[in-house]
Amino acid sequence: MYPELRKPGTRGDLMRAAVLGVEELERRLAEEFPEAFHAGSGLAIVDVWHGGARVRQDDRKNSTRPGGTVSGPVLMQLADVTMYVAILASIGWVPLAVTTNLTINFLKKPPPGVLIGECRLMKVGKRLAVGEVGIRADGETDLVAHATSTYSLPSRP
Amino acid sequence: MYPELRKPGTRGDLMRAAVLGVEELERRLAEEFPEAFHAGSGLAIVDVWHGGARVRQDDRKNSTRPGGTVSGPVLMQLADVTMYVAILASIGWVPLAVTTNLTINFLKKPPPGVLIGECRLMKVGKRLAVGEVGIRADGETDLVAHATSTYSLPSRP
Amino acid sequence: MYPELRKPGTRGDLMRAAVLGVEELERRLAEEFPEAFHAGSGLAIVDVWHGGARVRQDDRKNSTRPGGTVSGPVLMQLADVTMYVAILASIGWVPLAVTTNLTINFLKKPPPGVLIGECRLMKVGKRLAVGEVGIRADGETDLVAHATSTYSLPSRP
Amino acid sequence: MYPELRKPGTRGDLMRAAVLGVEELERRLAEEFPEAFHAGSGLAIVDVWHGGARVRQDDRKNSTRPGGTVSGPVLMQLADVTMYVAILASIGWVPLAVTTNLTINFLKKPPPGVLIGECRLMKVGKRLAVGEVGIRADGETDLVAHATSTYSLPSRP
Repeated sequence: MYPELRKPGTRGDLMRAAVLGVEELERRLAEEFPEAFHAGSGLAIVDVWHGGARVRQDDRKNSTRPGGTVSGPVLMQLADVTMYVAILASIGWVPLAVTTNLTINFLKKPPPGVLIGECRLMKVGKRLAVGEVGIRADGETDLVAHATSTYSLPSRP
Repeated sequence: MYPELRKPGTRGDLMRAAVLGVEELERRLAEEFPEAFHAGSGLAIVDVWHGGARVRQDDRKNSTRPGGTVSGPVLMQLADVTMYVAILASIGWVPLAVTTNLTINFLKKPPPGVLIGECRLMKVGKRLAVGEVGIRADGETDLVAHATSTYSLPSRP
Repeated sequence: MYPELRKPGTRGDLMRAAVLGVEELERRLAEEFPEAFHAGSGLAIVDVWHGGARVRQDDRKNSTRPGGTVSGPVLMQLADVTMYVAILASIGWVPLAVTTNLTINFLKKPPPGVLIGECRLMKVGKRLAVGEVGIRADGETDLVAHATSTYSLPSRP
Repeated sequence: MYPELRKPGTRGDLMRAAVLGVEELERRLAEEFPEAFHAGSGLAIVDVWHGGARVRQDDRKNSTRPGGTVSGPVLMQLADVTMYVAILASIGWVPLAVTTNLTINFLKKPPPGVLIGECRLMKVGKRLAVGEVGIRADGETDLVAHATSTYSLPSRP
C-alpha cells in the first residue's frame, strides 16, 4: 500500500538510524516502568528504527479467553507499548509522552503463543505523533489486530 | 446530551430490567473467565440494567506510570469489560460475543484509586452491539477516559 | 450516564454562557467558510452553550443512497461541523482549530429529512479538545450515528 | 510494515484478480449512486485488485478551508468510497454493504489538487470487512490522512 515504506522508516528517512537502540530502551524502560517492563511481563523489543518498532509479547497464562485465544486487553497493551517504543526510538527519551487516542480493530482470533506488534509512525509533529500498529502471531502473515494511535508529545528543544 | 437517557436504559426501555443480574453475572464470569474475574483482579460489577452497566476497578499495584497514574491498558480493559457486562446483562449469556472495534480517548490522568466504568449501549442489533463507556475516578465527575466499542454478537434464537 | 451533564455544560460550568452566540457564529462562518456555510448548504446552528452545540442539517438532494437513506459523508460532515461550532462557542474564535481525529459509528439508517447533531465537549485543554457528537433525525430519540473527535487548538493567550 | 503485502492483495491472494473491474464498477456505481458518482463529482477509480482499490478525487471548488486546504469531509468521503470500491472489487456487487465504523486521522494539510485514496482490506469475513485507507496528494509520498473502516456485509451465497 505504501511502496515508499517497504523498508523501515518514513518520509525519506529510510536509512536513518533510531535515536535510541534496543538495549538502551529496554534498560531505561525497565528502570522507569518496572510495573510494565519486568522479567515476567513477556514484553521484549525486537527491533527499532527511525519511524518504527517491533515488540514481542510472549504467552502469558492469564490472558486467555474461552477457546484459548489471547484477550483483547493484551493486544491493546501490545499496540500501545509498540507505539510508545517507536516514538522513543525516533525522537529520543520523552517518557512523558502520553497516549491520547487509540483505535483497535480485532481481525481474527490469535492462537496462544508469541505475538509480534509492529509500529509504523505516520506523523511525528511538534505536538502529536500518529502511528499504526499491526499485530500478528509470530511466524504468521495475517494480522490478528490493527491499531492506530495518537500520542501527545511534551515540548522539546 | 441525550435527555431520554438520563435514567439508565435505552430506546424507551428505561424501566426494563436486566436479563441477568449482578450476582449471576459475577458468578458466571468467575467460572468461565477466571483469568480475568478473580479475587485479585480488582474488577467488580456495581450495577447493570437493560442497556448498560457500571463496573468498578480497584487499585492494582502494577498498573501505574511515572507520576502515579493508572496505565492506559488498565483503562482499556475496564472499558472492554464494562461493555461486555452491559451486553450480557441486556441480551443474556452470550459469552462468545467478541470485541471487533474499540476506540478510546484519554482525557485526563486519573489519580491512583478506584475507577468506575459506565457503559451505555447505543445499538443492540442482530449482529452488532455498539456502546460508549465513560471512565472516571470514584466520586469524581470528570471523565478520565471515554471509549466507544463494537461487539460482534453470535447468532441467537 | 453523566448525571452532571443533564443540562448543557461541562465540568461545573453548567450555567456558563457560550463565548460566541449563534448569530455571530453563523455570520462569521458564512464569511470565512462560504464553501461550507452558504444558503444552499442546509447547515444551521440551532443552539450553543459552554461545552456544546446543536447543529441542524436540512435534507439535501444529493446525499441519499439506495433505499432513501442519507449518506455517510453527510453524517461525518455534520459531526465535524457540530464539534467545530461547539469549540468556537466555548473558547472563542479560533478558526484554525483543526480536526486531528474523528471516529464515527453508524447505528441505523436515517430517514430522509432533517438531522440534528449535538456535541458535548469532554475535554478542552491547552492543545486539544475532545468531544462526542450524537446525530439523530429531527424529532426522534434514537441516535443514527455517534462520533468522537479530537481537535488541535492553536496556541492562545 | 507488512512485507507480505508489498504487492496488492491479501492473505496469499497476491495474484488473484478483482471480481469486478474498473469499468464495470464505474458504470454500475454511476447507475445506482448518481448522486455520488457523476461527471461533476471528481471521483474516479484508478485501479482495483483482490483486496484493495485506488480512487482519485479531483479538486473541487467547494471543498477548501482557509489557507487553501481540502476540507475534512472530502477526505472522509474519499476514504469511505475507496473502501467501498475495494469491497465490491473483491467480493462482487453487494451494494447494500454499509459502513458501520470509520476512524480517520488527519496528518497534514493537503495542497489543493488531486487526492489519491488507496485501500487495503485487512479482513473480509462473512459479516464484516475491515480495511485501511491511506490518502495522499497525487505524486506525493507522505500521507495526508489515514483511515480504518468496517463495513457490514449482507449475507451472500
